[in-house]
Amino acid sequence: MELFFSDDIQDAQVRLDPEESAHCVRVLRHRVGDEISVIDGRGTLYRCVLEIADAKGAWARVLERIHGFGAHPYHLTMAVCPTKNIDRYEWFVEKATEIGVDVVAPVIGERSERKVLKTERLRRLALSAAKQSLKAAVPQVAEPVGVRDFILSAPEGALKLICYCFDDVERLPITEVLRRQAERVMVLIGPEGDFSPEEAALARANGWVPVQLGPSRLRTETAALTAVTAVYLFSLEA
Amino acid sequence: MELFFSDDIQDAQVRLDPEESAHCVRVLRHRVGDEISVIDGRGTLYRCVLEIADAKGAWARVLERIHGFGAHPYHLTMAVCPTKNIDRYEWFVEKATEIGVDVVAPVIGERSERKVLKTERLRRLALSAAKQSLKAAVPQVAEPVGVRDFILSAPEGALKLICYCFDDVERLPITEVLRRQAERVMVLIGPEGDFSPEEAALARANGWVPVQLGPSRLRTETAALTAVTAVYLFSLEA
Repeated sequence: MELFFSDDIQDAQVRLDPEESAHCVRVLRHRVGDEISVIDGRGTLYRCVLEIADAKGAWARVLERIHGFGAHPYHLTMAVCPTKNIDRYEWFVEKATEIGVDVVAPVIGERSERKVLKTERLRRLALSAAKQSLKAAVPQVAEPVGVRDFILSAPEGALKLICYCFDDVERLPITEVLRRQAERVMVLIGPEGDFSPEEAALARANGWVPVQLGPSRLRTETAALTAVTAVYLFSLEA
Repeated sequence: MELFFSDDIQDAQVRLDPEESAHCVRVLRHRVGDEISVIDGRGTLYRCVLEIADAKGAWARVLERIHGFGAHPYHLTMAVCPTKNIDRYEWFVEKATEIGVDVVAPVIGERSERKVLKTERLRRLALSAAKQSLKAAVPQVAEPVGVRDFILSAPEGALKLICYCFDDVERLPITEVLRRQAERVMVLIGPEGDFSPEEAALARANGWVPVQLGPSRLRTETAALTAVTAVYLFSLEA
């Protein structure tokens, strides 16, 4: 099953952009009358019939709308400091999308070696991973913000978890904390050099629960994916 | 903390091979009298003092043995069909090593597009990932065998789980099945084209429990890492 993406869906008309049109018509050789599936990136899949097979601008007519296609039963924001090696962050975005994440928020910590991050490529990766894993919702990739700003701007009512390494306070295993019911989960993962003690203290003072991911020493992106997998697996239990 | 590897440890004498010697003496500039940490790849870390700082063949004297350094509280064999794109399999080996796995067993299914796999590079990856994540035990990478042979040769007493996609039988969520206590866990993950019905039936007939990894559609290597993470996270609960 091949999913196309469109951000130009009005009433029963779906328009594919030139890139998607070329993929649909030139690469996959779809013809007028073929049925195709298009996602809006916001959770709805549209079963359509191709009406204009133009490799520069294809049009399709909506046959059926399927809301929540490929959705997961939780809302997860992963706030993860960019890794020195950007490939590892891109890998995280791809894998987290496959497993199930709603927002990837790059955050810059005091000890982050990488202070800038281009989000455009990450957004393309999230889109292609969502299509590949048959999800109609594409995770949002936020623009980078500072760790302190992110901590202070987090919404009320979310279960807010911060993973860090130093042992100044007791940190519960994430598996225990995830037993608490919450509509939204937010997880904050630090840079290679970890959060600064001030960042960790600010988080705790603002309701973030210190958690640990077990005895293994995990790289930033592995810790982040382990947290995504924990939320995903625990949603199977609920 | 930097770990070195040696397979030549006798009594209180540790010999580093030329590659490790060069890294220790030329790259890290260790000198006679420096303390270094060496793993044997089988679970023991040796605190040593460098006695011969030869970049082609360094020697160290053992000060202390630490058994089970970086060990995890389970024994996990991941039998995973090689992916078409070998990078994805190498990525799995690296990440699984970080999180915690004991044996990676490449298995070739009827529907595997990749029928051959070079294990030498995978073993090097497992070693470097184990050193990077501070584990004294390096996962064993087995030589590829056929899925049927693997199924039939699995030991008694292990909790044997098979993940596959088709819905001919009820498959419990892996999180439920992992509640069963077992000394050894084995997980079988199929190729992109899934197992054949005959392979799945043979597994069931031989005590393999069909499990599913939830609603998300995961690539082979993502499914495999999700299973590793499930076993790891559930060991935190026990």
